[in-house]
Amino acid sequence: MERTVIGMDIGGTNLRGALVTPEGRILKRLRIASDADDGIDAVVDNIVKLAAELGGGEVPGIGIGIAGVIDSRAGVITQAPNIANVTNYPIRDNLVKKLGPGANVIVENDANCAALGEWWTGAGKDVSSLVMITLGTGVGGGIILGGRLWSGADGMGGEAGHMTIYPDGALCNCGNYGCLESYASATAVRRMVREALAEPGVETVLGDMIPGSDPDDIPEVVMSAALKGDAASIDIWERFGVALGIGMASLVNILNVEMIVLGGGVARAWDMFIEPARAELKKRGLRAPAERVVIERARLNGDEGMLGAAYLALGGR
Amino acid sequence: MERTVIGMDIGGTNLRGALVTPEGRILKRLRIASDADDGIDAVVDNIVKLAAELGGGEVPGIGIGIAGVIDSRAGVITQAPNIANVTNYPIRDNLVKKLGPGANVIVENDANCAALGEWWTGAGKDVSSLVMITLGTGVGGGIILGGRLWSGADGMGGEAGHMTIYPDGALCNCGNYGCLESYASATAVRRMVREALAEPGVETVLGDMIPGSDPDDIPEVVMSAALKGDAASIDIWERFGVALGIGMASLVNILNVEMIVLGGGVARAWDMFIEPARAELKKRGLRAPAERVVIERARLNGDEGMLGAAYLALGGR
Repeated sequence: MERTVIGMDIGGTNLRGALVTPEGRILKRLRIASDADDGIDAVVDNIVKLAAELGGGEVPGIGIGIAGVIDSRAGVITQAPNIANVTNYPIRDNLVKKLGPGANVIVENDANCAALGEWWTGAGKDVSSLVMITLGTGVGGGIILGGRLWSGADGMGGEAGHMTIYPDGALCNCGNYGCLESYASATAVRRMVREALAEPGVETVLGDMIPGSDPDDIPEVVMSAALKGDAASIDIWERFGVALGIGMASLVNILNVEMIVLGGGVARAWDMFIEPARAELKKRGLRAPAERVVIERARLNGDEGMLGAAYLALGGR
Repeated sequence: MERTVIGMDIGGTNLRGALVTPEGRILKRLRIASDADDGIDAVVDNIVKLAAELGGGEVPGIGIGIAGVIDSRAGVITQAPNIANVTNYPIRDNLVKKLGPGANVIVENDANCAALGEWWTGAGKDVSSLVMITLGTGVGGGIILGGRLWSGADGMGGEAGHMTIYPDGALCNCGNYGCLESYASATAVRRMVREALAEPGVETVLGDMIPGSDPDDIPEVVMSAALKGDAASIDIWERFGVALGIGMASLVNILNVEMIVLGGGVARAWDMFIEPARAELKKRGLRAPAERVVIERARLNGDEGMLGAAYLALGGR
């Protein structure tokens, strides 16, 4: 048990943790509510509780992945969109206070953890350089170069979702126009659905399928509509894929990585968007790096963040 | 003399070399014709000649920067646009044969050498991460992360000039449409001049100034026309700057580097394009990384490639 560590993934709803071996095997996993709406102190109490249960009394190293801007070196949450009222919060120091002075706590942005996890034991385990792009509510990213995480000079890098794809394109949540995130995320799919439904003369089954759907389910709905041959839905995934392919081509030209891993909930629509994405990459990437890069689907089924966080707790970087 | 090395910059016209101390001081510099049109064997003979003159009989380490696709690990020129008939040429082995078995020869892409040079002793000497963008006939790039060159899994990375800026934009030399290079290079300026002159009803002094100009001088001509208040010329530099700013914003969001260094011959037009470039970066970059990145002009006046090559010969990376 000595060398096992704990990896955690702090979401807005759930707090998930796993006890992980140095080889990346998960021995035990737990999930509790994160209570993120009650603020960061509630979340910290839950982390301590989860760590105690997973560690069985011992306090091994703990790696924690959190959505937001994380200053990993200082152990500070600079901003976290999913946790109520948190800015510049010294989570590492506060956890060490509660866990005991010997505790080894590492915090890192969740997309960076996901990239590390997929590189360590997932799709990228045989390469030394990759970009992971997470297609979810937004679009996150993490970069591994030469077997190491590159999170930027201040830990704010990897934001592949905020590359400009169409300079005059749709407004992004970040304030910019035409970001990858505004074309290849669940949010983007919902916007494209609204636009299709608002356009006069467009015949689509989405008009019957969408009303009453949970907003979270809309990508799935558009997927099944596309599978039924609905032209408007096929067009939405085509635009999604083209934007993704443009972004991948720029990434490949800049970084010449061996692999791009696509994860996140919307990657379930893989068959809908991957062909236009690959075609665009081929069209726009420089020949040699675009031909050699492998585009893979994430393999760790949502465990990548916990595993990447565990890797950091083991002393990896 | 023991620890000095030689840095060389192989151009299509000139072969430039310098004897460099471990601190990055140039003790001696020479320039001879490269005879690149006569093929790679002529270039190799010239390299040997230059090395002998610079080294004064001794053969210290030699670093060589060459435009093109360079397999630095294998010491092979995969492709070099400026040298006649060269593909997959093992330049390192051939040089070692001529220089003697003890010779330490390193070859690297010229833009990567320029980035290393500016980081080692130029604009970036106080930072550990930067992207260098060279604005010349084309647009080259080199990436330093954590004090090390990232040239990609196969040495083909850093091609910031081939990020897509406008997906439906002008055709680039690489075959893609709307690359940074097709908006922010000497070639791009020449194209925008042609377009301005062909557009009916556009009044511009370029119509008088351009005919008879050496194509290489056209960026200078457009610069002086802009300084005289010529609207079409001002507009060309504005478009140049906007494209550059869009590219810089994406680079900053992806890599969160401390600095972007702009070099190359067309950087002389700095005052013409830097304001729109900075404005676009501010508009499109994520707040924190865009505010903290410093945009600097290259400082080494064309020596950056030789110095970066020398740095590699000293064992740096």
